[in-house]
Amino acid sequence: MRDKFEKLFEKAAKRGSMRFAISGAASDEVLLSVHKARKMGLMDPILIGPAGRIRGIAKRLKIRLDGIQIFDHSDETEIANRTAFLAGSGQAVAIMKGHISTPVLLKAVLDPQYGLRTGGLLSHIAYMDVPSFPKMFVVTDSGMVIRPTLEQKIVILQNAISFVRRLGVRKPKVAILAANEKVSPHMQETLDAVELVRLNQTGRFGNVYLEGPLALDMALSKESAKIKGVKSRVAGRPDILMVPDIASGNIFAKGMVYLAKAKISGLIVGAKVPIVLISRAEKADTLLRSIALACVVSE
Amino acid sequence: MRDKFEKLFEKAAKRGSMRFAISGAASDEVLLSVHKARKMGLMDPILIGPAGRIRGIAKRLKIRLDGIQIFDHSDETEIANRTAFLAGSGQAVAIMKGHISTPVLLKAVLDPQYGLRTGGLLSHIAYMDVPSFPKMFVVTDSGMVIRPTLEQKIVILQNAISFVRRLGVRKPKVAILAANEKVSPHMQETLDAVELVRLNQTGRFGNVYLEGPLALDMALSKESAKIKGVKSRVAGRPDILMVPDIASGNIFAKGMVYLAKAKISGLIVGAKVPIVLISRAEKADTLLRSIALACVVSE
Repeated sequence: MRDKFEKLFEKAAKRGSMRFAISGAASDEVLLSVHKARKMGLMDPILIGPAGRIRGIAKRLKIRLDGIQIFDHSDETEIANRTAFLAGSGQAVAIMKGHISTPVLLKAVLDPQYGLRTGGLLSHIAYMDVPSFPKMFVVTDSGMVIRPTLEQKIVILQNAISFVRRLGVRKPKVAILAANEKVSPHMQETLDAVELVRLNQTGRFGNVYLEGPLALDMALSKESAKIKGVKSRVAGRPDILMVPDIASGNIFAKGMVYLAKAKISGLIVGAKVPIVLISRAEKADTLLRSIALACVVSE
Repeated sequence: MRDKFEKLFEKAAKRGSMRFAISGAASDEVLLSVHKARKMGLMDPILIGPAGRIRGIAKRLKIRLDGIQIFDHSDETEIANRTAFLAGSGQAVAIMKGHISTPVLLKAVLDPQYGLRTGGLLSHIAYMDVPSFPKMFVVTDSGMVIRPTLEQKIVILQNAISFVRRLGVRKPKVAILAANEKVSPHMQETLDAVELVRLNQTGRFGNVYLEGPLALDMALSKESAKIKGVKSRVAGRPDILMVPDIASGNIFAKGMVYLAKAKISGLIVGAKVPIVLISRAEKADTLLRSIALACVVSE
């Protein structure tokens, strides 16, 4: 089957180069990725970091920086603040975390003076193509909020729903995952799921199908829903899988990558601009896919 | 690649028919599975349930019951108690849950008068073959204990270690999973992992390699451990993956089955005899694999 990410790359290329603020550009990996994304017509980067070191690395790697704006900062907080200022003032429509500590960057993003904060909470979405499954889907939150409360889950859902709407999904199908469909007072995630379904009935999440608690087999398989005797609009074709916590999401997402040959991308959402934030153990193509994703969903 | 379960079926067949107590035999699915396992030389069943209905179903399905012992009980508690008595007295070396409520069956299994209770806690092991991975591994606990405490995790581990030892693994490799390798007071599973590693250093789990907290990529990939700069005896070749809770385990295991073409089997362990306990949504071949597994690990 054709790689489902190809379509995303096409969409991203069609939009043309987007202005990215590269937060902490003084790193081989970061500059190589930026260079590649630029050549693909995805990114018009603004580099933030120690200019001397950035130029030195670029020279060694034979990457030309002609016409690229560089903001010279060595201090991490200054790098973070400049990043947030550029994005908040509309000079950049996406942020990519480079060689900078995550908490320092996110603190600046959340600082009200830069106007990047839109609502409650930043959250992580993993957007993946599992070859054995017919459509791409979001897993959230497998990278940011450790053990979300019900209130946090509401925002995580809103962030994910708004994300898939930007991808063009008109009526997102959302599965609230748990170990099974039975509601149990011993399983907080099943109680939360009931409440999220109720909130959805009041219109809280807009025009979506939202079901839960669902075990993963129900979410992924119409057949399974049929066997269990459940009518479902989500079963077999979810856009969003909401996991109970970071551990379950992370183990699932990594299981997909390492054992189901999934291609994955990730973003921090919930701010005015999408943030590409990939751990260093992840591969260069994951970073590139995430850049393309940010291009497609940026304003 | 050859289905890794074949070897297990061979081992089971070599041991010859094992005495199984079938708890609640009055069901089409149960009798069909029992019939199949019997034909394969895996099982010498003792049927427990309403004898008239069992005979009626067998007749309709054209299954011969010649030479099979039937204990005639209609009451669920009586079925459960008879099951526990047969296993506790050594007349059966394994239990298979049929058409009976799980809590009723487990209550009898845990009743000290039958002598099936060996230690702290019953737990679930899922034993799976993921085609993309070179060896089979256990995931625990993805089916029984909802959110284990540290004390419960100790027993869950002991149960799983004792299980893989019975499969012939001399020095089991155990990964205690979490969302990442960093220990954080906000992630109880990482604190528990540290304590389990410490307990292992005192010899609590016998001759095992035990590492944690590990993210799944570390547990599955030597390459990933190398990138992260960690020396590991477990990375890339785990026998046991211990998940933080039932939700994370269940979502992972179902992800493997539905998206990574995993073949799976499951047992309740921690009693004197293994218990085959498969939900009705699972397929007949999962049940058969679990029966074979019980044959191999029974005394």
